[in-house]
Amino acid sequence: MDVFRVFDALNDIRNLRRALAAVRRTGKHAEGTLCYTVSPLHTVEHFVELAEQLRELGCDSICIKDMAALLKPQPAYDLVRGIKEACGKDTLVHVHVHSTTGVTLVSLMKAIEAGADIVDTCISSLSLGPGHNPTEALVEMLEGTGYTTRLNKDRLLRIKEHFARVRPRYAEFESRIIGVETEIFDSQIPGGMISNMESQLRQQNAGDRLKEVLAEVPNVRRVAGYPPLVTPSSQIVGTQAVLNVLMGPYKVLTGEFADLMLGYYGATIGPRDPEVVAAAVKHARKEPITGRPADLLKPEWEELRAQALALKGCNGSDEDVLTFAMFPQVAPKFLAQRAEGPKNVGKTLARAAAAPAQAPKAADGKVPVSTPVTYQIRIGDRSHKVIVEPA
Amino acid sequence: MDVFRVFDALNDIRNLRRALAAVRRTGKHAEGTLCYTVSPLHTVEHFVELAEQLRELGCDSICIKDMAALLKPQPAYDLVRGIKEACGKDTLVHVHVHSTTGVTLVSLMKAIEAGADIVDTCISSLSLGPGHNPTEALVEMLEGTGYTTRLNKDRLLRIKEHFARVRPRYAEFESRIIGVETEIFDSQIPGGMISNMESQLRQQNAGDRLKEVLAEVPNVRRVAGYPPLVTPSSQIVGTQAVLNVLMGPYKVLTGEFADLMLGYYGATIGPRDPEVVAAAVKHARKEPITGRPADLLKPEWEELRAQALALKGCNGSDEDVLTFAMFPQVAPKFLAQRAEGPKNVGKTLARAAAAPAQAPKAADGKVPVSTPVTYQIRIGDRSHKVIVEPA
Repeated sequence: MDVFRVFDALNDIRNLRRALAAVRRTGKHAEGTLCYTVSPLHTVEHFVELAEQLRELGCDSICIKDMAALLKPQPAYDLVRGIKEACGKDTLVHVHVHSTTGVTLVSLMKAIEAGADIVDTCISSLSLGPGHNPTEALVEMLEGTGYTTRLNKDRLLRIKEHFARVRPRYAEFESRIIGVETEIFDSQIPGGMISNMESQLRQQNAGDRLKEVLAEVPNVRRVAGYPPLVTPSSQIVGTQAVLNVLMGPYKVLTGEFADLMLGYYGATIGPRDPEVVAAAVKHARKEPITGRPADLLKPEWEELRAQALALKGCNGSDEDVLTFAMFPQVAPKFLAQRAEGPKNVGKTLARAAAAPAQAPKAADGKVPVSTPVTYQIRIGDRSHKVIVEPA
Repeated sequence: MDVFRVFDALNDIRNLRRALAAVRRTGKHAEGTLCYTVSPLHTVEHFVELAEQLRELGCDSICIKDMAALLKPQPAYDLVRGIKEACGKDTLVHVHVHSTTGVTLVSLMKAIEAGADIVDTCISSLSLGPGHNPTEALVEMLEGTGYTTRLNKDRLLRIKEHFARVRPRYAEFESRIIGVETEIFDSQIPGGMISNMESQLRQQNAGDRLKEVLAEVPNVRRVAGYPPLVTPSSQIVGTQAVLNVLMGPYKVLTGEFADLMLGYYGATIGPRDPEVVAAAVKHARKEPITGRPADLLKPEWEELRAQALALKGCNGSDEDVLTFAMFPQVAPKFLAQRAEGPKNVGKTLARAAAAPAQAPKAADGKVPVSTPVTYQIRIGDRSHKVIVEPA
């Protein structure tokens, strides 16, 4: 790994300092990240100031990370231009957009016109929807503009065809979003999160209330001081919006939402609603903080190391201890089964075709028939008509 | 109908004059059209000259029609700018692009920056692939740019949702292209035509030779003097490319291709290959022409009218005569069945789901199983295991 993109969900510079310093100590490329979002407080000037702070921390490049595909062409131009003017023309600017809303290839064009140095895309057969914009389209888009990617189109075609063959094997993991979702400009939720919410609502037999939840998300964001929506703040805000719709506003708080309201994830750009802060104090039985949250952490490496070493299959490396520290639920099974080698979760094409991703499944994993199917069954010399239909 | 977009597949102005004059006589909006294509001869200057000629014919607007999604951002900018400079700022410029190659929303942005007055899009739930770019994305794209569509986003959302519900009923008519096809920049074939070719090849048991055919298309275009590929030239060039691959170059000519080589569709921008012209003379037993093809037509209205009136269900209107004149094979059945009212070719959602568009069908219309399916069948007190598998 040569390039480290370091981001904080709240764009709290204090949360980035240690990680960036650690990357720099290894001599690798440290990329400081602005999580892009829109709100009354997220102006171009604000982001440019953040970029300057990241630059002062010694970042080798500045990334504009637009996880929800909210970055429109004109703001993309203004932002890149602003960073170049404030931080110097030699500052590498990297633009990372998803394509969910359908406008971000245009934003890349304007970002390039404003001087962006690096952009993120992916091969067309894996692109679009909540993914990235297609690499081949970006290559062609630049013809005649004075900019070039110098990518070899024949090689891109071979990569495209390879992944076009592979992709259907993983159909069950795909997003349902295949077109363009401009509603995201209002809800500001990353495309991938909407399906999460749908499943939370279905578990509560409230699958029909998604629209109310999407409308509630901007309210929760305002109350919480306008955090960008990216892991983990997207899940925290999204889950609270679901609870507000199902139980009434802030009747029930998650522990994570209380922590967010109390400053335990860091500082938000805007003030947080005092009434909801008071509810969070009551719920979490702790006071708000304004300092750097990680200052409250006790050194825990030795203890985690001891716990990890007790796990079957742990090889005692720092990587294994970190795996356990970050994923305490998942790590024991992973470490125990690691010797069996990688698991292939892809299906053969025939199996993938037989069980399409969208088909509703019963609890036992069997797919019910959706329409009556008639069979003519012959046993010995007698013929029977058998009709199978939805129960 | 208030706006008439008049185009000729070869951009031969002589073929447009009469139709444009007829539109102007009715007092309706006459839109003169440039069929956009790329070739060594199709420069910005050439298209701008064509636009000036259309303007001189009294066109109310000039349309750049990009049926194959070949119009890249910089040429889009240069072309719109060139037309505005040559024809005057008040000349309405209308940009019509498809989205097949994935870059044309960017081209619309640059066209708008260059002064385009009108652009074509469609609602997102019917957009992308070989269709148009999504309307909602265009609306959002312009935020902060000084341009606006003044479209109501809530209404667009309702239209989107309506067509999202309707579209699955017509799944069997959909293109297989759902992502981005940048190979089109090389073959220059409109997206919709590729499936045509695939079916022609399959009928000849040569379904695996599509790539050869796509590579042959640019050769056929060069030989034919670089016609744009749009109805009917796209079909004519495409079919000839199929024949060249299957039978050897120009061993067999279609009557239409011979006519194209001999000037019976009009003038092409480039010279036509003399050897293939000679083959066309031999095949069609007629000489090349350089005049306006329609000058060779004899008045035929009264004869067509008499034939149309003899058809069951013909009401004697000019429209019915024109229907028969343009579609002599289809008109008799259409006129005879018209009284029964419109036919709904949509399927119920259950039927559409039961017979997906991609499933191979046997001649009798039944869908074969693709993988073994096991049933446990109980008749009386005996249980039988029945396995159905591909023959």
